[in-house]
Amino acid sequence: MREIFEAELQQLGDGLVDMSRLVESAIGRAGTALLEADHQLAQDVIASDHEIDRLERELDERCVHLLAQQAPVATDLRIVITALRISATLERMGDLARHVAEVARGRYPGQAVAPAARDTFVRMHDAAVHVAGRTTELLQTRDVHLAAEVEKDDDALDALHQETFAAMLAPGWTGTPQETIDVTLLGRYYERFGDHAVSVARRITFLVTGDFDSEHAPSHRAEV
Amino acid sequence: MREIFEAELQQLGDGLVDMSRLVESAIGRAGTALLEADHQLAQDVIASDHEIDRLERELDERCVHLLAQQAPVATDLRIVITALRISATLERMGDLARHVAEVARGRYPGQAVAPAARDTFVRMHDAAVHVAGRTTELLQTRDVHLAAEVEKDDDALDALHQETFAAMLAPGWTGTPQETIDVTLLGRYYERFGDHAVSVARRITFLVTGDFDSEHAPSHRAEV
Repeated sequence: MREIFEAELQQLGDGLVDMSRLVESAIGRAGTALLEADHQLAQDVIASDHEIDRLERELDERCVHLLAQQAPVATDLRIVITALRISATLERMGDLARHVAEVARGRYPGQAVAPAARDTFVRMHDAAVHVAGRTTELLQTRDVHLAAEVEKDDDALDALHQETFAAMLAPGWTGTPQETIDVTLLGRYYERFGDHAVSVARRITFLVTGDFDSEHAPSHRAEV
Repeated sequence: MREIFEAELQQLGDGLVDMSRLVESAIGRAGTALLEADHQLAQDVIASDHEIDRLERELDERCVHLLAQQAPVATDLRIVITALRISATLERMGDLARHVAEVARGRYPGQAVAPAARDTFVRMHDAAVHVAGRTTELLQTRDVHLAAEVEKDDDALDALHQETFAAMLAPGWTGTPQETIDVTLLGRYYERFGDHAVSVARRITFLVTGDFDSEHAPSHRAEV
């Protein structure tokens, strides 16, 4: 019985890694589509989001099945509940990547990002790809040191998010209303992407260390 | 055993109603704070968000306890899992109300909403208060006819959200970059608030009818 349960837990973990890999790919391609005004790439990201949604549903069903069949308690139960929550978070990260791609597609053949904010978004793209990669690695290795890296990447994303506001509020800002709207929304999508990665990192830390407080640590960030 | 379980399920339901009432109060006060530039009211909404967070944690712990003690299966298990998900959604709705209040507070003593968008936000406020009230009622009564009302309110919010973009992109838009940023973010907060209400409504419908598809029905809305 225990062996079956362990094997099923392992499968849950593998499922989360698979989801995270797809999210990593989606945010990377979405950022490239955005910065290079690549319509086809944007389209691909949008079209492939349903695959992340499908994995989430599969994983959730597996969790419910596991709860019903094995009636886990204590730590085992918390692992399954945490897997449910992480899958929901990864699914939202996929949605955010899709939103970035949707903005890119909506402005094609133009550039969504105003020239004065471009450099900031180049760095947001890098930070987001990095944080997504770290998240996958953390899910794979459960090395809680990586959680600190994820928090650092998220701090970088938050600082870049503030930079977008500073750019738009500077006297020299010549963006059109459409550009101001796009920079505002894109900045928010990237910022939320980082927040969600931190949420995953904290949940993994909680599973590994059993430190429940770390999961519920108040965030200095807006949580939507 | 069954009676204890039923009583505990009832408690879970009551907990969700309590959360939803707080969310309803928060979005109502946040909108008033926004439209009347009421600093104290904004402050109150922001300060009281932790109460919603506390209820969420309590409710989640009760769910985990229930799973561990009673090992429910089939429908009972799905009810508990759904309660977990609804509490997470209500918590995010509370965050969104707080974000509206934060924008109001940030612009005080000024008005965050540009004059050209004010009428739209008056109606968004009304629709959001309405959808929040319906959500509480739905959680209380499990009358699935109310779910259709929630979807309708959300459609209204989506249409108003589009109106904010139309206003900002009209040739006559004279908003400052700060106003464009605020209208963009506020519009997004209200739109997301409606999406989350729909998510709650679908989950309740799923519990009452057992129609799993309704819970996972693809939304025409952006899900972040």
